[in-house]
Amino acid sequence: MTLKARQEIENAEVVIGYKTYVKLVQAIIKPDAEVLSGIMGKEVERAKAAVAKALEGKRVAVISSGDPGVYGMAGLVLEVAELENANVPIDIVPGVTAATAAAAKLGAPLVSDFAVISLSDLLTPWSLIEKRLHAAAEANFVIVLYNPQSEGRKEPLAKAYEILLKYRNPQTPVGVVKQAGRTGEETIVTTLKEMLNCEVNMATTIIVGNSTTRVVGNRMVTPRGYDL
Amino acid sequence: MTLKARQEIENAEVVIGYKTYVKLVQAIIKPDAEVLSGIMGKEVERAKAAVAKALEGKRVAVISSGDPGVYGMAGLVLEVAELENANVPIDIVPGVTAATAAAAKLGAPLVSDFAVISLSDLLTPWSLIEKRLHAAAEANFVIVLYNPQSEGRKEPLAKAYEILLKYRNPQTPVGVVKQAGRTGEETIVTTLKEMLNCEVNMATTIIVGNSTTRVVGNRMVTPRGYDL
Repeated sequence: MTLKARQEIENAEVVIGYKTYVKLVQAIIKPDAEVLSGIMGKEVERAKAAVAKALEGKRVAVISSGDPGVYGMAGLVLEVAELENANVPIDIVPGVTAATAAAAKLGAPLVSDFAVISLSDLLTPWSLIEKRLHAAAEANFVIVLYNPQSEGRKEPLAKAYEILLKYRNPQTPVGVVKQAGRTGEETIVTTLKEMLNCEVNMATTIIVGNSTTRVVGNRMVTPRGYDL
Repeated sequence: MTLKARQEIENAEVVIGYKTYVKLVQAIIKPDAEVLSGIMGKEVERAKAAVAKALEGKRVAVISSGDPGVYGMAGLVLEVAELENANVPIDIVPGVTAATAAAAKLGAPLVSDFAVISLSDLLTPWSLIEKRLHAAAEANFVIVLYNPQSEGRKEPLAKAYEILLKYRNPQTPVGVVKQAGRTGEETIVTTLKEMLNCEVNMATTIIVGNSTTRVVGNRMVTPRGYDL
């Protein structure tokens, strides 16, 4: 967490977020702050509640995990404020997104150009996700996969695997990080070929190396190209 | 800056980094710490010095701006340690990379899939950079450009502009952020068509929207796809 994010949460009169994330910051929320914690899937309601509370003159903190601007609540809050003509000041406080948190645990896989793709097709058509996987793999981007699968949704990762194998060597290093930067964190460096053998859930981030990524010690490094 | 990064710098016996970045954290460096600040282009020497100091048993902090794993020093330090068979513990402390720091200032342009591309061809062949620009633009990624240009290198951004225009509407929102998250920060929301009219240097981050990105108030938002 950044110093700025910590400050904002400590100073908030209202804290709003998905309950799992609110729990992570419980210790620094003001004792008399109002806490509105909700369930997954109720993002629009939480954005509306945030804008309503801000219109009452309250200092509100909306919590996302990682960075609120990467698949997080930042855009939704701005859109709701616009829709409701709510003239309230809104600051987006950036954070450490799962891509770089996971990368740090794995070594340095992102030291070159990379693409970030969510495998959740709840809000993006699967055909577009596939197109992006093809494009990123063909242009030799390091690829970061968010939301690789959940209990009811195992197909996307298997499909991504088939696409990636068309362009990358099966021995390409792949890093799998569960709960990056949180309690229960687990890190595995494996290969593209073995990727589907790892246990993966919604809170897992997967980083697929490019053609130059290699294993250094037990870590993944994409050389930047310096002459050593 | 994250709490963890701050702690590591405060506890370091040796601090190593490009002089501009060392200056930014001067206030939290221990008074008796050794400081090795160097010039741009001497990254390999700094990585070697860091490993050498760690082998002497010193607690060393190597400073990058943003996130050390995104075009930063993390990979180089791991590679040098391997090359020299240096058995020293190395922790990578993730940070807020320019992509998300700039995004937060602009609004929420990265709430969907995005690609990060450096326009510096010092270490990556220009032909590969071009290929990545084509691929990312065609697959409708939001595109983040690092190192768009420097005094002696104005062509890459002009070439990128021509490529992006082949795939994106000239009215596509583009955000230009100088010195994201630092003193002297400047933020401009413009269009792809007008992009080249902005003053841009090496410390500028440019975010080019995808086909759905729009201007909300004076900010850039890529809708995640929620039904409002």
